[in-house]
Amino acid sequence: MKATHILETVLYCEDLAAAKYFYANLLGLELFRETEHYLGFRLPRSLLLIFNPQVSRRKDLPRPPHGTESNTHIAFSATQKEIQQWRAHLKGHNIRIEESREGTSLYVRDPAGNLVEFNQPTDWGIEWNSTEERFE
Amino acid sequence: MKATHILETVLYCEDLAAAKYFYANLLGLELFRETEHYLGFRLPRSLLLIFNPQVSRRKDLPRPPHGTESNTHIAFSATQKEIQQWRAHLKGHNIRIEESREGTSLYVRDPAGNLVEFNQPTDWGIEWNSTEERFE
Repeated sequence: MKATHILETVLYCEDLAAAKYFYANLLGLELFRETEHYLGFRLPRSLLLIFNPQVSRRKDLPRPPHGTESNTHIAFSATQKEIQQWRAHLKGHNIRIEESREGTSLYVRDPAGNLVEFNQPTDWGIEWNSTEERFE
Repeated sequence: MKATHILETVLYCEDLAAAKYFYANLLGLELFRETEHYLGFRLPRSLLLIFNPQVSRRKDLPRPPHGTESNTHIAFSATQKEIQQWRAHLKGHNIRIEESREGTSLYVRDPAGNLVEFNQPTDWGIEWNSTEERFE
């Protein structure tokens, strides 16, 4: 058997209001679900879920417990031109650029300290054609 | 600005050999990069990276540090029929089924204790048509 698609990518942040500002307002993701336990963002082909780990770790909930401290990692696709735009955009909102490797990738931290990267799929040897249809 | 695609979904596992067996052999993912620090699996539209957190946390590496204890979470897309097949497949390889909610989702643990789910996109109100072109 073969798993075919990642449906849910998950990060953890105790301060969901701060996470909402970062991912919805600064990164422009579409928030489609918001509870006191988690935020759900919908991307074209997958979901980003951000849980409050103090809740998701509890063992008295219907779903199995999960959740960890901060400092996990995620990367979003971006072209080299978009990486420059992200750099200016995020700096303009007082987000510290942790590292920018000559324009080919960009690293910042979300409010929980998770490492958020913008990177070109071509750096992984992956070809893609347009903003809308990467990985086609 | 708007982030459009998740390029890298990241999990952590100190025992990369055990992670390789679980994700490549049991889940059938395509391993395309293997170092002493991490495994890289290629899916049709994204990458799954599994880092040894004892290495990725180090501050003397070219990239910013990240890495955490186990117990994060990921979900793969599957139809209801596929979920039943995954259940039999994983049980047949002595993987404990942590929870199976009436055939609509399936939870197991990877070797690091990360919660791995198989779930239907339709449970999130997402329509998709075939195994190959989910989220089209």
